[in-house]
Amino acid sequence: MKHPGLALIEKRASTSHYDAAQSVSDTEIENLVRLATRAPSAYNLQNWRFIAVRSPERKAQLCALAYGQTKVEAAAVTFIVCGVLPNSAMLPARLQPFVDAGYMPADMPAAWQAAASRQYSDERTARDEAIRSASLGAATLMFAAEALGLASGPMVGFDAASLADEFDLEADEVPVMLVTVGRAAPGNWPQKPRREIEEVLQFS
Amino acid sequence: MKHPGLALIEKRASTSHYDAAQSVSDTEIENLVRLATRAPSAYNLQNWRFIAVRSPERKAQLCALAYGQTKVEAAAVTFIVCGVLPNSAMLPARLQPFVDAGYMPADMPAAWQAAASRQYSDERTARDEAIRSASLGAATLMFAAEALGLASGPMVGFDAASLADEFDLEADEVPVMLVTVGRAAPGNWPQKPRREIEEVLQFS
Repeated sequence: MKHPGLALIEKRASTSHYDAAQSVSDTEIENLVRLATRAPSAYNLQNWRFIAVRSPERKAQLCALAYGQTKVEAAAVTFIVCGVLPNSAMLPARLQPFVDAGYMPADMPAAWQAAASRQYSDERTARDEAIRSASLGAATLMFAAEALGLASGPMVGFDAASLADEFDLEADEVPVMLVTVGRAAPGNWPQKPRREIEEVLQFS
Repeated sequence: MKHPGLALIEKRASTSHYDAAQSVSDTEIENLVRLATRAPSAYNLQNWRFIAVRSPERKAQLCALAYGQTKVEAAAVTFIVCGVLPNSAMLPARLQPFVDAGYMPADMPAAWQAAASRQYSDERTARDEAIRSASLGAATLMFAAEALGLASGPMVGFDAASLADEFDLEADEVPVMLVTVGRAAPGNWPQKPRREIEEVLQFS
């Protein structure tokens, strides 16, 4: 029998039309973010942050920053998914629970910190990692939403600089994606057609 | 009842130890990539490419490029997940099937092409999109692998410039991540501990 997780992947579509009368509770939002952060990240950096925008005032503000895309106002919540420029000094604290649990050798967090420090000394590599971690988290958030019976939609069209200013992002935080979540209204498109497999897969 | 997709998210762990005696068929590889490309991408650009490395010679070469991480040789297959710098000229062909299916208005592909052309004229924005699309594809590939009973593990530690050279990447292709896939051997770590939700979630 096919695993039901496969149907989530096959059927997920980016939702544009939401039922504005439906809300999502704080508990559901916490659950979504808890699941999103199960995504992998390099060195287990977990260099991400999620801002759940769901007050009418903040939604209106975010809608304007997203060039008036009204789905931000109709969706129950829109997550600003931020990637954080890697800070290797954070690693020991993020890995210590795994040492304490008896899995990771005690000297490994320091070794990983040194490796991460070298790897991310290059500015472009550091930004790439922020984009990558936030994207992995956003993808996981969208699958979690599907599995919880909620619709979702990623957005990259927004004024990143003004958003960082108006939502008080830290200097090391990059707003990577917006993800709307809520109950779908009628009239949404199905998943868009995909390229032929031969165009995107090479065996080596 | 909890959707079984949630257990995939909760239990997925980055696999380091693979049973080198187990292979994955070409049909399974095609199915994995077909599922991976169900991920969303901006404008439905689908700006990604997957190289499935599974011959012993190419695995050995890729292992060396990944600083000797032997999981590349033990895993049945390692995918080089590439993001492609957005080329808005590709959009009409990628959207036309959706017009033909009766969903998208006939003049929309040209409008999206113009918007994408403006958005990605900035070099950093274009690279960000390549990283983002490939990461969304890689995350979907990992969930698909889990749902198909396979283990997986993402890797970002590799020599990107030499890899691009030795695997004949095009000038507009960015190697964003390696993803090992195969059957897990004993001795893998469980999912590493995650940060407290309060550290990563803000309500607004």
